[in-house]
Amino acid sequence: MSNAFMHQDFLLTTTIARTLYHTHAKPMPIIDYHCHIDPRQIAEDHVFRDLTEAWLGGDHYKWRVMRANGVEERFITGDASPYEKFEAWANTLPGLIGNPLYHWTHLELQRYFGISEPLTPETCQNIWERANAQLSGLSVREIIRRSKVKALCTTDDPAGDLRWHQTLRDDPDSPCLVLPAFRPDRTLNIDKPGFTDYLKTLGKAAGVPIDSLDALKTALNKRLTFFVEMGCKAADHGLDYMMCEANGNADAIFKKALSGEAVSLKEAEAFKTHLLCFLAQRYREEGIVMQLHFGAARNNNPIAFQTLGPDTGFDAIWGAPNTGAALGALLGRMESQGGLPKTILYSLNPTDNAQIAAMIGCFQTAEHKGKIQHGSAWWFNDSKTGMTEQIVNLANHSVLAHFIGMLTDSRSFLSYTRHEYFRRILCDMLGSWVEQGEYPRDMAYLGQVVKDISYHNAVRYLGLENNLEPLR
Amino acid sequence: MSNAFMHQDFLLTTTIARTLYHTHAKPMPIIDYHCHIDPRQIAEDHVFRDLTEAWLGGDHYKWRVMRANGVEERFITGDASPYEKFEAWANTLPGLIGNPLYHWTHLELQRYFGISEPLTPETCQNIWERANAQLSGLSVREIIRRSKVKALCTTDDPAGDLRWHQTLRDDPDSPCLVLPAFRPDRTLNIDKPGFTDYLKTLGKAAGVPIDSLDALKTALNKRLTFFVEMGCKAADHGLDYMMCEANGNADAIFKKALSGEAVSLKEAEAFKTHLLCFLAQRYREEGIVMQLHFGAARNNNPIAFQTLGPDTGFDAIWGAPNTGAALGALLGRMESQGGLPKTILYSLNPTDNAQIAAMIGCFQTAEHKGKIQHGSAWWFNDSKTGMTEQIVNLANHSVLAHFIGMLTDSRSFLSYTRHEYFRRILCDMLGSWVEQGEYPRDMAYLGQVVKDISYHNAVRYLGLENNLEPLR
Amino acid sequence: MSNAFMHQDFLLTTTIARTLYHTHAKPMPIIDYHCHIDPRQIAEDHVFRDLTEAWLGGDHYKWRVMRANGVEERFITGDASPYEKFEAWANTLPGLIGNPLYHWTHLELQRYFGISEPLTPETCQNIWERANAQLSGLSVREIIRRSKVKALCTTDDPAGDLRWHQTLRDDPDSPCLVLPAFRPDRTLNIDKPGFTDYLKTLGKAAGVPIDSLDALKTALNKRLTFFVEMGCKAADHGLDYMMCEANGNADAIFKKALSGEAVSLKEAEAFKTHLLCFLAQRYREEGIVMQLHFGAARNNNPIAFQTLGPDTGFDAIWGAPNTGAALGALLGRMESQGGLPKTILYSLNPTDNAQIAAMIGCFQTAEHKGKIQHGSAWWFNDSKTGMTEQIVNLANHSVLAHFIGMLTDSRSFLSYTRHEYFRRILCDMLGSWVEQGEYPRDMAYLGQVVKDISYHNAVRYLGLENNLEPLR
Repeated sequence: MSNAFMHQDFLLTTTIARTLYHTHAKPMPIIDYHCHIDPRQIAEDHVFRDLTEAWLGGDHYKWRVMRANGVEERFITGDASPYEKFEAWANTLPGLIGNPLYHWTHLELQRYFGISEPLTPETCQNIWERANAQLSGLSVREIIRRSKVKALCTTDDPAGDLRWHQTLRDDPDSPCLVLPAFRPDRTLNIDKPGFTDYLKTLGKAAGVPIDSLDALKTALNKRLTFFVEMGCKAADHGLDYMMCEANGNADAIFKKALSGEAVSLKEAEAFKTHLLCFLAQRYREEGIVMQLHFGAARNNNPIAFQTLGPDTGFDAIWGAPNTGAALGALLGRMESQGGLPKTILYSLNPTDNAQIAAMIGCFQTAEHKGKIQHGSAWWFNDSKTGMTEQIVNLANHSVLAHFIGMLTDSRSFLSYTRHEYFRRILCDMLGSWVEQGEYPRDMAYLGQVVKDISYHNAVRYLGLENNLEPLR
Repeated sequence: MSNAFMHQDFLLTTTIARTLYHTHAKPMPIIDYHCHIDPRQIAEDHVFRDLTEAWLGGDHYKWRVMRANGVEERFITGDASPYEKFEAWANTLPGLIGNPLYHWTHLELQRYFGISEPLTPETCQNIWERANAQLSGLSVREIIRRSKVKALCTTDDPAGDLRWHQTLRDDPDSPCLVLPAFRPDRTLNIDKPGFTDYLKTLGKAAGVPIDSLDALKTALNKRLTFFVEMGCKAADHGLDYMMCEANGNADAIFKKALSGEAVSLKEAEAFKTHLLCFLAQRYREEGIVMQLHFGAARNNNPIAFQTLGPDTGFDAIWGAPNTGAALGALLGRMESQGGLPKTILYSLNPTDNAQIAAMIGCFQTAEHKGKIQHGSAWWFNDSKTGMTEQIVNLANHSVLAHFIGMLTDSRSFLSYTRHEYFRRILCDMLGSWVEQGEYPRDMAYLGQVVKDISYHNAVRYLGLENNLEPLR
Repeated sequence: MSNAFMHQDFLLTTTIARTLYHTHAKPMPIIDYHCHIDPRQIAEDHVFRDLTEAWLGGDHYKWRVMRANGVEERFITGDASPYEKFEAWANTLPGLIGNPLYHWTHLELQRYFGISEPLTPETCQNIWERANAQLSGLSVREIIRRSKVKALCTTDDPAGDLRWHQTLRDDPDSPCLVLPAFRPDRTLNIDKPGFTDYLKTLGKAAGVPIDSLDALKTALNKRLTFFVEMGCKAADHGLDYMMCEANGNADAIFKKALSGEAVSLKEAEAFKTHLLCFLAQRYREEGIVMQLHFGAARNNNPIAFQTLGPDTGFDAIWGAPNTGAALGALLGRMESQGGLPKTILYSLNPTDNAQIAAMIGCFQTAEHKGKIQHGSAWWFNDSKTGMTEQIVNLANHSVLAHFIGMLTDSRSFLSYTRHEYFRRILCDMLGSWVEQGEYPRDMAYLGQVVKDISYHNAVRYLGLENNLEPLR
């Protein structure tokens, strides 16, 4: 193998890995079943002004490392010129040895712009010009088409009107299925500021005044029905940490909060437990997938939060205790109360990997192969080592062949190359196992597994078989 | 190295590893010092009807992944025919890429049946027939003899009569030492249903009415004495999580429970702490090994528990906080109250590895080389990566050469190949270190270390030197 | 690559790694910014009587594994002769396969004594004689000079008089900068025995009777000013576990403790939180680095503690829950109250790695490249795997190029070879990444990164540019 930088066999260290990737993984389309992109940009077929808008506009991953590189905030989120910001990024990049951003950046330059040299302070100006010159031909829809994205699930508040989803559904030139995902975090966050105000917004959207827990459920039901009509295939919840508080009267706690009184931590947990169990049952009835994301410690820097607000790069990993026990209790409760929907579990704390991978085995049923999933390495773990650890844990504890694979979780349209990154890592692991005699050299079967994890498993898991044309 | 599937040098990636394994590890007999097999089957020299009985009868490891493969429960624990169940297993197996069950299954096919092709839906019928045809010549005793098992420790309730152990002790054709292990979990579980009923059973077995903590201790003492007479060399405890609650009056708590009152979590912990310390001292006096297993979250799926009961594949990893601090407190307390017996610590949570490996170093004494052990990777960690991590942690923090090595923890007689799996992994690690110049190429010494970890250390640790014939 | 034992390319598995190490890393001097050596020994230019004094005098790392090897305490900390103790160590060493002590020992034999054969029971006498014969020429200052140590930071109680630092500052032949570090643990430990007595000592040193929290702060301020005058560049705190307790009146709690009353756990946490925030602000004002070490479970063996006291090898890893959340809260509080100083975070629990590496990204600013650091693998993690995991985590989450690298944390003058060990591991990781095409083969840039992490980053981080001669 050549050691040229990010050559065509990048991350593929065996012959078998190379065959698996180039023959089986690479041609597969993408189902990006969890992301944070703005559907309006697809509807309006947004064209990026320059690479700074495309890359640095809202990407707090990059902002964080720029701060660690000593870059002034003016060049990150401030009023510096687009080129100055790009330059600050180019100055930061060489130091990111071993960081996934280093690979993502260059995969994006290679795949979308045909630029194969590393971005450095020296190549900065030249790459800026060459890439920007291509942006007019690289609209959001063109990126989606080139990336072979067949479906994507955005992340949407239940109060949202989904009008851009509607527009896209009615647009014969929509580049792919753009489906809403139901994310009622603000309804769950009874202990966070703005809860009662938000309930008014939700109530208005649903046409239901929310003055009791029953009314809240009615409102959520109405919105969920609407989301499902709009093609929603997945719901999503962000929890600070995994918990299950069985004791407590959810009605009373909700009324307390409605009246403006503060609720205790235990009360908040009891309310969340109650509402999550209610929603899980509803998801199951609607046949949609429930995603539980947990373990993010948000807005750790109060000074930065005052200035820049949330989602600007000041989140980290919570490190909650008792994930396994709490997860077992919550899933057990849901299973008892009507049965679990298809469920994907993601923890931001990589030390939860084994606990999650072991726990999903307790709730698998014949309803679907791999009904309960350990979600792909998430956010801070979305690196070569993070992905590898998640896959190894999953393989150790479950049936790897049914894994639904990668998602971007991204705000950026250029980030579909993360699917390539994932597929290369997956193929390399399979290749190594075969090379070492740990699995038979059955290329037909392994090829099918690679195709399934890259694409077909997600199609089947989301129930999109009838919404997508079969692959030629 | 060939990349043929599970060839003779499977997992042995260096020349040194191959020499260490084939010359030193492979010829060594087995001491299976912790397992769950039924001594009656040895006493009666059970012959398996078919591969389904031998493999799938009670193996919840396999059941779990079959469920993850979408297999109906009828084909797992239900009334399907033996061949249908075997077929369901054969259909599941190919998807288990990277799963230890994939390797265990094929090691067992190779070693006990001389079948070297992979089990797949295509080879299912043929392998079923070939393997079944050999089962009549492969009784339980024959398996033990072929596997070179010299001694095994079962897992036994203190109230048990040990009559099959007795039968085997008196049988000149017994294939190996079959020793009981003392597992008083039901005496510790003051907070679980059935506690007072169980005390009656125990009292009856001991001939001691248990109406006080002193009486309980007397009963346990009597049973322990009986176990020791029957050759018991090890005790075992399963704790949900590591804890040490020094405050609380154990007498009073016990009386409360005896009277039918519920005890609080703290009271239960205080009682367990007290009784564990009492037993530790007794084990020390009797010269037997104390095993502490912790970190299992059991019966997570309440629906499945109602239908199938415990130990049917619905357990997972607890993920307790503060393992290190609690473990230090408990071992310290035992050390203060008469001294620790030889102790083996096993956590189901692999993120406890470093905490355990560091803590054992605080309680080592000149009484025995490696008196306190970090037990081999357990249950969900019994995989190539799990074993590797445990060995690396142990090597980093302690004297690897004194490790007592592998056990099966198994309900299955065909699972002795897990010792082979472990030995290959161990030899490969040693080989890599030598190849990379991290340890001298002293084959005589390393060969001895491999023999010790494979066999001699366990013999000495259990004090079996005088019960076993010396190796030729 | 040769597999000769610890040959010149030890741990360097690629051509690029070898170039990076031999050309760039090896020539660099050492800044040992955190250690526990006694400055008096430098001032008096101590010469070791024999290898036992130099190696086994206070090294509880070695004591622990000797105990695990079944060595009697007499040969560890007792009255056995120096040669008997050395022999006990030589007997223990071969079993330490995979243990960092095995490598450290032989690096020290190679680098300081030119002895390249392994220490074994067979070579024990011969090595004893050859090494001892060289000790007269290997005074403490000579070791420092040969090791190219340019600066080292000791660990000092605020009540200390720093007279040996003074002596060394005034000594034109001092072999390097010997700087005090401010470690006020005894002031923080309001819940540990001896607190009020210690306050008297501190008050005397500061010339301030400590009868209130304000007086305590005044005393600490005075001592800090004195330390800074004496060249102090870093402070250090040892916390059992990471915590942040915002509720509680620190004045009242302090008064309670002063009056001899016991404080609760929550009160102790509130006091520590308050005082840490106060000190963080002061460190920032003085421009010195704050180090937070947490996660050690100390003195776990009460019997050994009675006999041998603290720091004799009976500490382990705490395993605290919620590190991420607590760390975010504490750093956030400090940032709000005047701003964080440069901060280095070290946890003894390796499962905190990802949480720390993610959290530092929330507090980076343009004040310094890599202002908040994830400290090098500490104590029990100071192994090949521990260092690798810390570097991988740091690389995944931050800008590796700004890492301040290795420290010894050692009580031993011969331990500077740990810097070599670290540099080899670092160069090997970089080399592998380049060989696999994961980073460009830009040897000039990578060479500079290696030099920076080995030396320059620490110089700049501590602000020592003007105290050290530039490298030729």
